Amino acid sequence: MIILLHLDAGPAQRAAVREALEGFGMSVSEVSLGARTALVTEGDGHPAASLARLPAVEQVIQTETPAPLAAATLAGGGRPVSVGTTLFSAETLTIVAGPCTIEDAGTLREIAGLVKQAGADALRGGAYKVRTSPHQFQGGGIEALQELRAVSRECGLPFFTELNDPRQVSAVADLVDGVQIGARHMQNFPLLTEAAKLGKPILLKRHMSADLDEFLLAAEYILDAGNEQVILCERGIKSAERHVRYLLDVGAVPWLKERVGLPVIVDPSHAAGHHRLVPALARAAVAAGADGLIIEVHPRPEETRCDALQALSPTTFAQLVTDVRRLAALTGRRAGKVASDGGAAETGASGDGPVLRTAAEA
Amino acid sequence: MIILLHLDAGPAQRAAVREALEGFGMSVSEVSLGARTALVTEGDGHPAASLARLPAVEQVIQTETPAPLAAATLAGGGRPVSVGTTLFSAETLTIVAGPCTIEDAGTLREIAGLVKQAGADALRGGAYKVRTSPHQFQGGGIEALQELRAVSRECGLPFFTELNDPRQVSAVADLVDGVQIGARHMQNFPLLTEAAKLGKPILLKRHMSADLDEFLLAAEYILDAGNEQVILCERGIKSAERHVRYLLDVGAVPWLKERVGLPVIVDPSHAAGHHRLVPALARAAVAAGADGLIIEVHPRPEETRCDALQALSPTTFAQLVTDVRRLAALTGRRAGKVASDGGAAETGASGDGPVLRTAAEA
Amino acid sequence: MIILLHLDAGPAQRAAVREALEGFGMSVSEVSLGARTALVTEGDGHPAASLARLPAVEQVIQTETPAPLAAATLAGGGRPVSVGTTLFSAETLTIVAGPCTIEDAGTLREIAGLVKQAGADALRGGAYKVRTSPHQFQGGGIEALQELRAVSRECGLPFFTELNDPRQVSAVADLVDGVQIGARHMQNFPLLTEAAKLGKPILLKRHMSADLDEFLLAAEYILDAGNEQVILCERGIKSAERHVRYLLDVGAVPWLKERVGLPVIVDPSHAAGHHRLVPALARAAVAAGADGLIIEVHPRPEETRCDALQALSPTTFAQLVTDVRRLAALTGRRAGKVASDGGAAETGASGDGPVLRTAAEA
Amino acid sequence: MIILLHLDAGPAQRAAVREALEGFGMSVSEVSLGARTALVTEGDGHPAASLARLPAVEQVIQTETPAPLAAATLAGGGRPVSVGTTLFSAETLTIVAGPCTIEDAGTLREIAGLVKQAGADALRGGAYKVRTSPHQFQGGGIEALQELRAVSRECGLPFFTELNDPRQVSAVADLVDGVQIGARHMQNFPLLTEAAKLGKPILLKRHMSADLDEFLLAAEYILDAGNEQVILCERGIKSAERHVRYLLDVGAVPWLKERVGLPVIVDPSHAAGHHRLVPALARAAVAAGADGLIIEVHPRPEETRCDALQALSPTTFAQLVTDVRRLAALTGRRAGKVASDGGAAETGASGDGPVLRTAAEA
Repeated sequence: MIILLHLDAGPAQRAAVREALEGFGMSVSEVSLGARTALVTEGDGHPAASLARLPAVEQVIQTETPAPLAAATLAGGGRPVSVGTTLFSAETLTIVAGPCTIEDAGTLREIAGLVKQAGADALRGGAYKVRTSPHQFQGGGIEALQELRAVSRECGLPFFTELNDPRQVSAVADLVDGVQIGARHMQNFPLLTEAAKLGKPILLKRHMSADLDEFLLAAEYILDAGNEQVILCERGIKSAERHVRYLLDVGAVPWLKERVGLPVIVDPSHAAGHHRLVPALARAAVAAGADGLIIEVHPRPEETRCDALQALSPTTFAQLVTDVRRLAALTGRRAGKVASDGGAAETGASGDGPVLRTAAEA
Repeated sequence: MIILLHLDAGPAQRAAVREALEGFGMSVSEVSLGARTALVTEGDGHPAASLARLPAVEQVIQTETPAPLAAATLAGGGRPVSVGTTLFSAETLTIVAGPCTIEDAGTLREIAGLVKQAGADALRGGAYKVRTSPHQFQGGGIEALQELRAVSRECGLPFFTELNDPRQVSAVADLVDGVQIGARHMQNFPLLTEAAKLGKPILLKRHMSADLDEFLLAAEYILDAGNEQVILCERGIKSAERHVRYLLDVGAVPWLKERVGLPVIVDPSHAAGHHRLVPALARAAVAAGADGLIIEVHPRPEETRCDALQALSPTTFAQLVTDVRRLAALTGRRAGKVASDGGAAETGASGDGPVLRTAAEA
Repeated sequence: MIILLHLDAGPAQRAAVREALEGFGMSVSEVSLGARTALVTEGDGHPAASLARLPAVEQVIQTETPAPLAAATLAGGGRPVSVGTTLFSAETLTIVAGPCTIEDAGTLREIAGLVKQAGADALRGGAYKVRTSPHQFQGGGIEALQELRAVSRECGLPFFTELNDPRQVSAVADLVDGVQIGARHMQNFPLLTEAAKLGKPILLKRHMSADLDEFLLAAEYILDAGNEQVILCERGIKSAERHVRYLLDVGAVPWLKERVGLPVIVDPSHAAGHHRLVPALARAAVAAGADGLIIEVHPRPEETRCDALQALSPTTFAQLVTDVRRLAALTGRRAGKVASDGGAAETGASGDGPVLRTAAEA
Repeated sequence: MIILLHLDAGPAQRAAVREALEGFGMSVSEVSLGARTALVTEGDGHPAASLARLPAVEQVIQTETPAPLAAATLAGGGRPVSVGTTLFSAETLTIVAGPCTIEDAGTLREIAGLVKQAGADALRGGAYKVRTSPHQFQGGGIEALQELRAVSRECGLPFFTELNDPRQVSAVADLVDGVQIGARHMQNFPLLTEAAKLGKPILLKRHMSADLDEFLLAAEYILDAGNEQVILCERGIKSAERHVRYLLDVGAVPWLKERVGLPVIVDPSHAAGHHRLVPALARAAVAAGADGLIIEVHPRPEETRCDALQALSPTTFAQLVTDVRRLAALTGRRAGKVASDGGAAETGASGDGPVLRTAAEA
């Protein structure tokens, strides 16, 4: 820890800081920075804020990583996540697709069939919705989830669904393949902890105003609860720009992949907020090195009760899958769906190895 | 609802929009805007997003209020909120004060005595903390709350405490005077709904990235659950400015008070993030017409486990209470603590009525 | 123009709005929206703000495009921009590269040679710098520009350089190939107007806090001064996120390309602020459909006086050019440098046509 | 300067940093922070960015103030600014008022009379406007300024007017009392430098996306050009919140006043963007310790060509002046207009000294 002192901190004030540190059992050394002085300790033992309160202190610079469990996932080649026969990893481009919300069994089955045919690796569908207004449709609940469970089995694709209340967790324990935590619940720590205990993969979306350290610390809660199957999902940042709903933080992808070994995927649908922008954002995410995408698809978007403006038509989605598979092939990435014989599913890649690099660039 | 059509929308595309609207049982009229055309309906019955999906549609403008229950609180002189003998209203400046977190009974009793003496109207103290990192102190839980309950009774000030999990609600039902919903849980709708059912006052903080409509819609969830005792609390917005932790949206105070009849208070402590800025923000809030303040106070801030940098010393707090009571007296506001004889507590106001206006200005 | 009236606007108040409109010679019709009423006019003749001031008016919705000259550039296949033998267009991926600032003739010549060899289509280099502090190096001025002029001729690549003062324009008229307007000067309208009069291509960067309408209106100033050779450049948005310097608004690329026919390029160097993130942002921009890139390159970044952290080494730049040329080939885009025989320069594309779509997606 | 090294920086990489520093003639010491190491130098001589480029370096922390001239203004009791007989200082609340733009001599004379009668200390009025669109009214230019010059003399109030082009400076040298630099030109450094040379007071507005260090560095340019008569003006920050046009950064007032001795005033008109919010923001600014206000006033706002929505009516302005004078009297502040006998003008303050504190709070 480095404690930068005020330019005009006098000897008594300096001594007070030193004594406070020593009172916490820390050994302190003093270094001169020219006009001003800093105190330096080994380790960040004591809360920085308390020290910052002392009159001599201008700034406290902590030098230990705030999210050590997240940082540790870099070791040993990272932490690929499997959901059934689908894999999220640095070698795959894994595509999750489906409706915003589960409406009726027929439509759900239709969408599942279409996205599977287009090349999706997993399904998504909401039963417990997080809606800005109490007067909006709140989701179909457990019955909707049972439908999704059935359709998922029929088509052979695992699924993710969002939970937003720790009391839902035990009820859905046997129903879900993977849990999604929505952006607005990224810092709902009781929910993260309870969901983590399911022992199933957690797709954690970044809050639209969270900085990247806060995002990693939310993942840290899940890791701290003993669950390492975490998929990070960037979905756009709220900003002063009014014309694109959220700003997709495409730079977050390489930033995160340098710092943690967890899969990093992107949700272009919620970022864009408009179907016409979704394909460009999806391609950008893949070109930036994302390990996967999660995309809303609906055969008749104008009839859906939720997110109609951003859902892709099946045709546009199929074209987009083709496009991003080609991009991914340039870096040797294959699809995330593992074939029943244990090998990788066909990817459309030429097979002669990556030609672009996606790791941190020298 | 006004549906603005694209400049180049052809007759068939227009007809499709009209048919969609009529399919929802809406009567439609067409108006010319010069180069382009709009369709107009009575009421916003159908989800705007679905219409926006049609090719002819450029923009859908909804004209009904999204939060009708919140808007209705303006009627009949607004909705003052009572917590024990303390009142939040347009005629009071009600000051809530206390530690960030409940640490030990002795310190808690000391703080309660100090803030009461300084003129606070209610206490605050956290037992269930929302901490960015799992490695930080998470609060003392139910035992801490029982201590706060006891100290509150001793000193005769009611208290607010934060809940962050719907499962906590039943456990604390008999313990708490008022529930605080923290900024990060503003859109935790299951929590809002469950807490609302307690039938006790809810102090709802605005998320640091919520716009004001989203804030009102969060209040709408509580109102929709049948609880009208809602206090809105502005506590600063996350922005690109790095030097002041959050930007206190002081303009939100008059904006909200024009649109809803709920008390609007301000938390200068979390906005500022630094004790040296807290008094200025507090005075600004009162001058802008806030109905109250919630402030962190600690006798030895450098020893606290949480928010040390922003807690006011008791001396600074006492001076601040004097200052803001004088400001409030200029608009005829009295303290929120109702004296035991049923009259208003002494305010320091000269008694000759308001000289500044705080209602919406002509 | 649509004038939405307040729910409680009385007959006299309504009449006042109608009279105001009629006073400006506009014909007005009234439409019912259920609980409220709107007035509708043909065209946006009168300033919206004046009407918004009337007591009955809740909102004024303008329906004409604010930037008609920019919108008109969509017609006739858009407005490709040529700088010497280099072309910016929807069919090219045009790469501008060079140092942040022109330091000495030797280094400049070295960089120009390296980026040309790597495949750049044009040079960049700053002689008049916009530095946050007066104590930083402010650029080499006209002498530096003469060096860049000479090096540009030697290597056969045209160049862009930034102007930041309308008084510089006449002095550089015979020296420059294209003018860059930096982000901080996007709304320096006297500079835009004066630079436009040179009749040379203008590379206009978006301000880090400008929304897209403001960006188009800045271009509108140049168009209004009679110069249609405008290249729009997205370079990242200032946001609350602290870890990536600016958020690259990759969605701005398709948004802009739907609305104007001007080339849209991206500056990943200033967005990233760190060389390790530049390649990922560059690839994302190209995958999203950008018409070009502008990138800072320096052979010994640790020695440069400006922007050392974000400059790419020549090796990394060369690899990046290879990578983005492959991405661009997927959509049939060729390099922007036109070969001396008038044909397109070699691109590395397979030649069998585009396989990805970059236009607005259906 | 503190150079924090990466956790895994090896001996050779460390040596390279040390050598780079020594190559710049700096003496270096090494300190252990537990798991990692830092290098420390006296002073910030070498550009931080170059060092940050070395592979071993994680972060460079500069410890010298970036704006030393601005910091030096704290000495000797600060730098009050006089414009004619009007004073901006820590002892005054100085109110500048007038129209957005100078329209005709009659209206201008009417407004000047009204604001003087209401208690304003100086006039404002724009002749060179910074308009988002080239199709909007751009201001009346030099003729408008001559009118303002005449009206100012008649009513005995000095005036500020905005310049936006360094070429305007010499033309207006004999006409203006004080120069305003608008928010969009805060980082137009050639303009700042040229305007500074006039030797007249400069009212410098903060850009709506500038952080406070950038604001101080813009002032540093003026100071560096030899002009210490700088008035800083906060006018609101662009944020994701859509309902209040700009977020008034009221915390910037005490933050700036702790760090520089220049007057700090607030523009509530441009922050609010709506006349109904202006009084609350103005009162908040004064309560937070602002040294003055600059406010738009118009007798018939619905007729003005610019900013109609935010201009106060003369009646509302007069009430606001009364209100803020009372607030200011609580801290012993008097009006900024110095009476012709050299004493302070009457303030309405009771005269028995300040009762609130506005300096940095202990």
